[in-house]
Amino acid sequence: MTYARQMLDSCPPTVDVDAGVLAAAIDAISDCAQACAADADADLSEQNLAEMVTCIRLCLDCTDICTATAGVISRLAEYDAGSTRPLLQACAAVCKSCGDECERHAHMPHCRVCAEACRRCERACRELLDALA
Amino acid sequence: MTYARQMLDSCPPTVDVDAGVLAAAIDAISDCAQACAADADADLSEQNLAEMVTCIRLCLDCTDICTATAGVISRLAEYDAGSTRPLLQACAAVCKSCGDECERHAHMPHCRVCAEACRRCERACRELLDALA
Amino acid sequence: MTYARQMLDSCPPTVDVDAGVLAAAIDAISDCAQACAADADADLSEQNLAEMVTCIRLCLDCTDICTATAGVISRLAEYDAGSTRPLLQACAAVCKSCGDECERHAHMPHCRVCAEACRRCERACRELLDALA
Amino acid sequence: MTYARQMLDSCPPTVDVDAGVLAAAIDAISDCAQACAADADADLSEQNLAEMVTCIRLCLDCTDICTATAGVISRLAEYDAGSTRPLLQACAAVCKSCGDECERHAHMPHCRVCAEACRRCERACRELLDALA
Repeated sequence: MTYARQMLDSCPPTVDVDAGVLAAAIDAISDCAQACAADADADLSEQNLAEMVTCIRLCLDCTDICTATAGVISRLAEYDAGSTRPLLQACAAVCKSCGDECERHAHMPHCRVCAEACRRCERACRELLDALA
Repeated sequence: MTYARQMLDSCPPTVDVDAGVLAAAIDAISDCAQACAADADADLSEQNLAEMVTCIRLCLDCTDICTATAGVISRLAEYDAGSTRPLLQACAAVCKSCGDECERHAHMPHCRVCAEACRRCERACRELLDALA
Repeated sequence: MTYARQMLDSCPPTVDVDAGVLAAAIDAISDCAQACAADADADLSEQNLAEMVTCIRLCLDCTDICTATAGVISRLAEYDAGSTRPLLQACAAVCKSCGDECERHAHMPHCRVCAEACRRCERACRELLDALA
Repeated sequence: MTYARQMLDSCPPTVDVDAGVLAAAIDAISDCAQACAADADADLSEQNLAEMVTCIRLCLDCTDICTATAGVISRLAEYDAGSTRPLLQACAAVCKSCGDECERHAHMPHCRVCAEACRRCERACRELLDALA
């Protein structure tokens, strides 16, 4: 069991949401923040740097937005729907953009792994949005 | 002239946006991230801690969302509207919630200052959303 | 295999460090950042709030330092020893302080889980410091 | 008066430190985090990308470390010297490395401005380390 799930089980959020869906979102978002930070650095080591610029920028945005989202949904004891919902939408959207861009370089193993992390994170954000509805 | 404005003047974003509006948003968001981090800590030093819990939680969310937003809008050389717009909406929303809560404790000077930082940040996010439309 | 390890295998860092040790550190630090954010929120739901203040503050510091450290060691393609080493020392130190404090409340399940995450992170930081020596 | 100074005046830290030195550090560190985020993006728009890679990496490290440091020193109501001092040392060190690298590209206005932000931040970190001694 991941730490995110153990923390939720030891102190359940007051908002009515399935702990499994929430824990999966926290884990997917944390993983994606890290994968994108690593992928931006891997991109910077590539020969054809000019082709990687969009990918680097999206990875940096994705890391920043995932980091904030992981923090906010780790603090759901009081749920502020007005900010949390657009934040989750922003997170899903940047994961879509970043995943699409990484998939264009899927012949590079680091972009293939990062695309997977982005796809999983996008799905987890959308599932959490549905679960919080 | 702030560093944010100097950076924008030295390397203008490709997106069509007024540099003054963008620099004002970057500065207001950075200031708000810091004010909220400081206010959460000041709240923790208050006697009537139970009354400060919502304020502390909103301050922590506000710091996280402002930090991500400052990063993303400092990187507007390529503008990903699909994620940047909901992020700015999330930032304005959390500043509204946090500013409202801080205003309820405006007899505490630290909450009064933090409320001001939140109000200014909310306005700056909305002005940037309009300017990017 | 975690995403951190997959990313390292797909784009090995140029610095001479064991990939298993580095991946373990990235994972432990990311987990600790999340556990501490969740624990601060759980602390805020406790009855005896005044006794939790130090724990909340250390959890917030721990989240911030772990987040930065995870970012920096995800970018070891070029290794800046002068900043990375004291950062890892700061991370180990805050995990020690936060783990000690959480252990004092180990009768609360959320603090017990968080203490475990802090201990594991402290160890992983020290092992990485040794491996990078 | 900056928000950082207003917050400190409304809720003085318990640690014995000059409020002016602390506020100056908070402001310089926040400015540096933003300047480095903006400079990394500006670097990515340059023609001679291969020459900018080290600068981009140092800017990303500098943003991450400055963001954590700004958070931690905004929360000095309880001062954990064991983690705060190495963190400030890491922050001064990455500002030195990043400032040196930016200065090599000082013919690019964005790197010249960023170098100034790094130098000011490095000085402010060292002055705060002395003041906290």
